[in-house]
Amino acid sequence: MNNPWKSERNLTMLLDFYELTMSNGFLVNNMQDKTAVFDMFFRDIPDSGGFAIFAGLEQLIEYVNLLRFTEEDIEYLRGKRIFDERFLEYLLNFEFQCDIWAFREGTPIFPNEPVVVVRGPIIQAQMIETMILLTINHQSLIATKANRVVRAAKGKPVMEFGSRRAQSYDAAIYGARAAYIGGCSSSACVMADRLFGVPAIGTMAHSWVQTFDTEYDAFLCYARTYPDCCTLLVDTYNTLRSGIPNAIKVFDEVIKPLGLRPKGIRIDSGDIAYLSKKARKMLDDAGYPDCRIVASNSLDEYIIRDLFLQDARIDLFGVGENLITSKSDPVFGGVYKLVAIEENGVYIPKIKISETVDKITTPGFKSAYRFFSRETGQAIADYITVFDETVNLDDKIVLFDPNATWKKKTVTGFECVQLLTPIYKKGKQVYTMPALSDIKDYCAAQVGRLWDEVKRFENPHRYYVDLSRKLYDIKQGLLTNLAL
Amino acid sequence: MNNPWKSERNLTMLLDFYELTMSNGFLVNNMQDKTAVFDMFFRDIPDSGGFAIFAGLEQLIEYVNLLRFTEEDIEYLRGKRIFDERFLEYLLNFEFQCDIWAFREGTPIFPNEPVVVVRGPIIQAQMIETMILLTINHQSLIATKANRVVRAAKGKPVMEFGSRRAQSYDAAIYGARAAYIGGCSSSACVMADRLFGVPAIGTMAHSWVQTFDTEYDAFLCYARTYPDCCTLLVDTYNTLRSGIPNAIKVFDEVIKPLGLRPKGIRIDSGDIAYLSKKARKMLDDAGYPDCRIVASNSLDEYIIRDLFLQDARIDLFGVGENLITSKSDPVFGGVYKLVAIEENGVYIPKIKISETVDKITTPGFKSAYRFFSRETGQAIADYITVFDETVNLDDKIVLFDPNATWKKKTVTGFECVQLLTPIYKKGKQVYTMPALSDIKDYCAAQVGRLWDEVKRFENPHRYYVDLSRKLYDIKQGLLTNLAL
Repeated sequence: MNNPWKSERNLTMLLDFYELTMSNGFLVNNMQDKTAVFDMFFRDIPDSGGFAIFAGLEQLIEYVNLLRFTEEDIEYLRGKRIFDERFLEYLLNFEFQCDIWAFREGTPIFPNEPVVVVRGPIIQAQMIETMILLTINHQSLIATKANRVVRAAKGKPVMEFGSRRAQSYDAAIYGARAAYIGGCSSSACVMADRLFGVPAIGTMAHSWVQTFDTEYDAFLCYARTYPDCCTLLVDTYNTLRSGIPNAIKVFDEVIKPLGLRPKGIRIDSGDIAYLSKKARKMLDDAGYPDCRIVASNSLDEYIIRDLFLQDARIDLFGVGENLITSKSDPVFGGVYKLVAIEENGVYIPKIKISETVDKITTPGFKSAYRFFSRETGQAIADYITVFDETVNLDDKIVLFDPNATWKKKTVTGFECVQLLTPIYKKGKQVYTMPALSDIKDYCAAQVGRLWDEVKRFENPHRYYVDLSRKLYDIKQGLLTNLAL
Repeated sequence: MNNPWKSERNLTMLLDFYELTMSNGFLVNNMQDKTAVFDMFFRDIPDSGGFAIFAGLEQLIEYVNLLRFTEEDIEYLRGKRIFDERFLEYLLNFEFQCDIWAFREGTPIFPNEPVVVVRGPIIQAQMIETMILLTINHQSLIATKANRVVRAAKGKPVMEFGSRRAQSYDAAIYGARAAYIGGCSSSACVMADRLFGVPAIGTMAHSWVQTFDTEYDAFLCYARTYPDCCTLLVDTYNTLRSGIPNAIKVFDEVIKPLGLRPKGIRIDSGDIAYLSKKARKMLDDAGYPDCRIVASNSLDEYIIRDLFLQDARIDLFGVGENLITSKSDPVFGGVYKLVAIEENGVYIPKIKISETVDKITTPGFKSAYRFFSRETGQAIADYITVFDETVNLDDKIVLFDPNATWKKKTVTGFECVQLLTPIYKKGKQVYTMPALSDIKDYCAAQVGRLWDEVKRFENPHRYYVDLSRKLYDIKQGLLTNLAL
């Protein structure tokens, strides 16, 4: 199959050079089999939102399954003259042996909780850092942004239109996938449909209209070619004086006589609020109240919200560059930190101190849970524990803010869901990826279980991500000991 | 070769769905062989800068050379049930027949000039729109940002460190390539080295330090492993009280006795200005005035400029997310517009009117020139003409601002360089790509020929991009005729 992405692309060499210098260092110092635990987590929610959406797991799995250094890769590395021959031999015979746990794709995620946990030989767990971050950071960024835009659109479909402005090819393709998870209905990107089944849509550009002697001729030709899916772009010359009248004329002359209905008109410039209201009236008056109005000019969640405030009459939104690059906040700052080293069967927690207090890591090999109210079904808090702690559902649990320990809350009557799912055990995949449409549905359902206060675009309520007492004490102990 | 990008990846299906609906429409209406001319140009310079850098041509060529629809692609399209069988047959036997002209990679470019021109059967010229924009927009964005950062660094090397925060895989790899064109000295991205020869660099992460019982042990082990390229990361616990003292101790104990010199220390958090000055003094006092200080914490052109203003003592900059995503302005807004249709051997200019005056296109099949002063060698203005106009070097040329025609300037004694180079003739590649290092050198030389006033980060002087009188009159004529 012509499928240059899925399951065929070896991304092993897409890593930071320091992963190799460190890995070589571990090996030549006989530390390669030391068992380490790394957490991926993030610190800040894009656009100062209340939550992010976890995405990219499927591509992470594809990467891991194809991990393999070729002879040519080894030859290239040998040319650097700093790697030991034993290390190059190790790479050539590389066999993945780590355990990986991760959140399910489409899950709402919050700062400072481990969304991916890797345990295994340090040489391997270190080496996959770059690709874990790159994969999850990108798709989580776009799924999060898409979810904001989709929530702003209040049930009207949002189409992803940004390929041409994406930050290179994969950003277009995987961005369309992530946008679909986040709630978009479709994408202009054919490759995303071809590879993942994201429904591809599209009709005409201004160039179609310009190619003909008149706008009317262009519409006529298009309507005759696509009578049962006729959407016309009406802003090439003048939306109200030429575009919409010509569209109505062609609907009357071509679509109606066939017993069909026109699908829509698209407005791509000018004041969308004003034009859409005028357009709605013109279409209604002409007998096309079912003809949909598509808007697609530099939209994002804020503009869409404002359009509704001004009673714009828009049935579908096409969103381009602001979504596919998450323009207002284009970086998802996930990090990958060493949190424990196993010594004689015991996990020694490790911490990274920083002059910036927010950057201090939570040490230890951990588990993560989400509590849902049995009464309302809504998410109450996430609860991070040491990996082998048990959460007794019959107990009252006292939650406290790890940055403000006097803030306490006792929860009872909750459902407790384990958030970290086993993906690999000793290097073997143990997780079956759900279908993309199931991930999309799961995402919508989980976002539905968040309080409205967490879903505000600005100044949302901060969702609780709390540490168990045991984990909290481990962190404090390390901080006290390491303080210089 | 394990080369999943270069010359092996068929990106034919990476296009917007409407390219296909339009192309099918051209074919079923027997318009497919109509000759059309499209321009790619952009309107706004990222970060409100004075110029952008053109990049991505090599990948555009690779894409075009691999244009090919597979049987499976055709089967997929047939399943959409809207494409004519003649069209699917056409795609299966697709043979590229267009002419393409483009600026050389690394050239400074300005708004509203054609940086890529495509002439050929409209069905084909239309279909490659998405990939032209996607390719050039991304790499031009990153090359432009990198050039800003590199200019801020005033000769100190800038290393590209952003892979983990890039917007997916290609953004990391081609981003590193574009950053190198823009002036970066190297990249952490191994794949970019492997594929393009962008020098890959890197030493250690905080995890290396954390893996050992003490920071001293970690440094000792690293120095013994890499005595002749020893750069130590000094901010895992406390830069001044622990990191630098431990680094000096290890330099004294391991590096010096071998008759070698330490390469550097890296600071990745805290106040870089303050820490670098303290670090410089500590290293100097310890007898290591040649030990370089690397800084790498959320840097961009503005922070680097401020660090110099505060006399920070930094020898190399590592720049991550702010560069690889062009965070402060993450979209390069290149567009691809129909500008002419050939009818009986004559090019009929085409225009796209817009309610937004800035979005009105310049019609016609065009050429583009850059005038350099014979005296100073500096760029004076770009000059856009009808494709078959001649520029007489002995003439005085009267330049005028197309948006403010009373602003006139007479130029004489200039060197005139044709900016659009033939890349394809009738579908055959006629251009040989220069080596990447030559593109980088060319970029630096061409930026050197711009006035300093154009290179300001804020409120730069607007470089002149003027239309010939003939071209200006064509545009005005069309505007007058089309005005409703």
